[in-house]
Amino acid sequence: MDKLKLINEMAVDNGSKIVLLVMDGLGGIPMEVGGKTALEAANTPNMDALTAKASLGLSDVVAPAFSPGSGPGHLAMFGYDPLEYVIGRGVLEAMGIGFELKPADVAIRCNFCTLDLGGNIADRRAGRIPTDECIKRVEILRQIEIPGVEIFVEPVKEYRFVLVLRGENLGAAIPDTDPQQVGVPPLAIKATDNASEATAVILRQWWEKANQLLKDMPPANSCLLRGISKDPGLPRFSEIYKIRSAAVAVYPMYKGVSKLVGIDVIDHEAESPAEEFEVVAKHWNDYDFFFVHIKKTDSYGEDGNFDSKVKVIESVDQALPGLLKLKPDVLVITGDHSTPAKLKRHSWHPVPVLLAADSARFGSKTTFGESSCITGTLGPIKHVDIMPLALAHAMRLNKFGA
Amino acid sequence: MDKLKLINEMAVDNGSKIVLLVMDGLGGIPMEVGGKTALEAANTPNMDALTAKASLGLSDVVAPAFSPGSGPGHLAMFGYDPLEYVIGRGVLEAMGIGFELKPADVAIRCNFCTLDLGGNIADRRAGRIPTDECIKRVEILRQIEIPGVEIFVEPVKEYRFVLVLRGENLGAAIPDTDPQQVGVPPLAIKATDNASEATAVILRQWWEKANQLLKDMPPANSCLLRGISKDPGLPRFSEIYKIRSAAVAVYPMYKGVSKLVGIDVIDHEAESPAEEFEVVAKHWNDYDFFFVHIKKTDSYGEDGNFDSKVKVIESVDQALPGLLKLKPDVLVITGDHSTPAKLKRHSWHPVPVLLAADSARFGSKTTFGESSCITGTLGPIKHVDIMPLALAHAMRLNKFGA
Repeated sequence: MDKLKLINEMAVDNGSKIVLLVMDGLGGIPMEVGGKTALEAANTPNMDALTAKASLGLSDVVAPAFSPGSGPGHLAMFGYDPLEYVIGRGVLEAMGIGFELKPADVAIRCNFCTLDLGGNIADRRAGRIPTDECIKRVEILRQIEIPGVEIFVEPVKEYRFVLVLRGENLGAAIPDTDPQQVGVPPLAIKATDNASEATAVILRQWWEKANQLLKDMPPANSCLLRGISKDPGLPRFSEIYKIRSAAVAVYPMYKGVSKLVGIDVIDHEAESPAEEFEVVAKHWNDYDFFFVHIKKTDSYGEDGNFDSKVKVIESVDQALPGLLKLKPDVLVITGDHSTPAKLKRHSWHPVPVLLAADSARFGSKTTFGESSCITGTLGPIKHVDIMPLALAHAMRLNKFGA
Repeated sequence: MDKLKLINEMAVDNGSKIVLLVMDGLGGIPMEVGGKTALEAANTPNMDALTAKASLGLSDVVAPAFSPGSGPGHLAMFGYDPLEYVIGRGVLEAMGIGFELKPADVAIRCNFCTLDLGGNIADRRAGRIPTDECIKRVEILRQIEIPGVEIFVEPVKEYRFVLVLRGENLGAAIPDTDPQQVGVPPLAIKATDNASEATAVILRQWWEKANQLLKDMPPANSCLLRGISKDPGLPRFSEIYKIRSAAVAVYPMYKGVSKLVGIDVIDHEAESPAEEFEVVAKHWNDYDFFFVHIKKTDSYGEDGNFDSKVKVIESVDQALPGLLKLKPDVLVITGDHSTPAKLKRHSWHPVPVLLAADSARFGSKTTFGESSCITGTLGPIKHVDIMPLALAHAMRLNKFGA
């Protein structure tokens, strides 16, 4: 909290405008020796033109060698050190499916699993049942009622679902019941603090009933409870930075993580980058900070589809004038992590950052890409510094010390 | 420990192979304005060819301006922050001469010194007596027996020797007796915790007897006790990283520091880089991580012999195909610190790192040297991140958070 407290003390609201444009999983690596990354291969005349009035840098998201999940990646970009501010897996899973979590809710990511006749785990993922089998069982589990608590069960994908408890005085200090191995029974549901004792009792009751309902439905005849957690109550983004802030995102996870830090989520029907930029334009006078999230760069990276990732980047570039005409004082273009199509997964490779502002230390770069960012004037930075740098370039941070 | 704990939680054993090839004191500076470093001056076609499928970086070993000793340099390279994990000087000195230290032993690095008739120190290094004079006295000191403890006395070099106590319940919380000045008596041997009281009594008895035996042997007629320490019980390398690990080293210090973190030390007769690589080849199926140590780059740096340092680097390059034919998934080539021949000592200059892997962000470099590493795609890194980065590139680290 110390660093955010210092930033907060230096922050002033001067009415200047900042846009943080995030292409999910933007960073990449070449598919082969001597090749280019997706960002380098993309034809991006608008972004390249911006480099003349921008500062480029390459940024470590969490720490060298860490491949960040979406939660930690966005927290870092919002200025919250993900090694310090931890969001539970249950909360992240609930956010990922767009569940409207309330501050006192307890969220649990569950796996359907297979128990053998002796009650030991035969398969921790229930043979990876298809999603429709998951939905069928989730509907059955919704019958379970326990006095004094409201219960939500939501399917996610394949063997995964989310369980949410809503009520008074719930606690989340309850370890996973997944023993991470087969041939043994699930671990007992036990609270590790007094405040979670009553919640553990509720969960034991729920789990017993769930086993009754599922017992004749192999391979998914039981479930494991994991990542039992609550909203961590993060410091409020708008208050720390003294800026009216809004999120324009299409996917639930990114709306969820925005809400978690207290960024307003704008309701809209937009899908394409151009449409998302129109949403920003429409709300331009209502907010001074806009987080705009583009998902598909990551999706195609995960699919190993280099060419489609390139095309998404190009579509963002083509739409960019719609954002530039608003004349933000600071425009940051970056990603929440790298997703190289070659690796088909989130990776640890540092992420390119472009920061355009009148106050930038302009360099001599002419293209926006990983290679040009290595020696950019922004230097090698960390994601947790992106927000403070954006504020500084917007002349929103006073001097430190006299 | 937190960072290592996180790495441990992300680590998976996928059977991929990593080689960490360390040329001791690799980094350097040009001998004159406009010149090249030893690595840049060396003819290294194999390493240069590797740069196409590698990521280069320049790495700070401990912290800017810190010239690391061999202990901290290697600890950092193994992923243990040397500012957090401290190995006592007595333990390091014992390791440096190949003494087989046990976990409960107390090791002390001693100086022969000269006491005057009044018992004050006249020379803290006993006129830097030659090593054979040291050995003569060490043999005399081996006569000393104290009930309940086994005592080892081993010569090191000139006025330096090692004393090791082996027994039950020994403590090492005993400050140096070296007052760091002449004209005053040695400091009293005093424990600073209860667990070390009995050990202080033993050391006082030993020191009295040593003075008796040495009293007619000026200039080395007494000794000072320094760096009194025990094995710090570091977290085990193979367990943290979930990788079967082995060291191939020629000199005792590097075998010692490997043992200290729990890396298996392979017995062998190899001396040249080519022979060391053959040892790796012979044990290729027994381990998934190999630390290979080349000493002579540092020795010639310390001697101020630039040309010979260049030749050692060239000999490593010539032997490199013997390592490459094993097709490691990740090959890291670096040093544990810089030893510029111009300075004839370990220095603080950041060290070049080459990381070759299919998952590397390939750059456009064509040579391996300090200058090319400055703007490499690995970026400016820290030595403590080398192991996590090697694991990440070997796809041995899962995502951080969801």
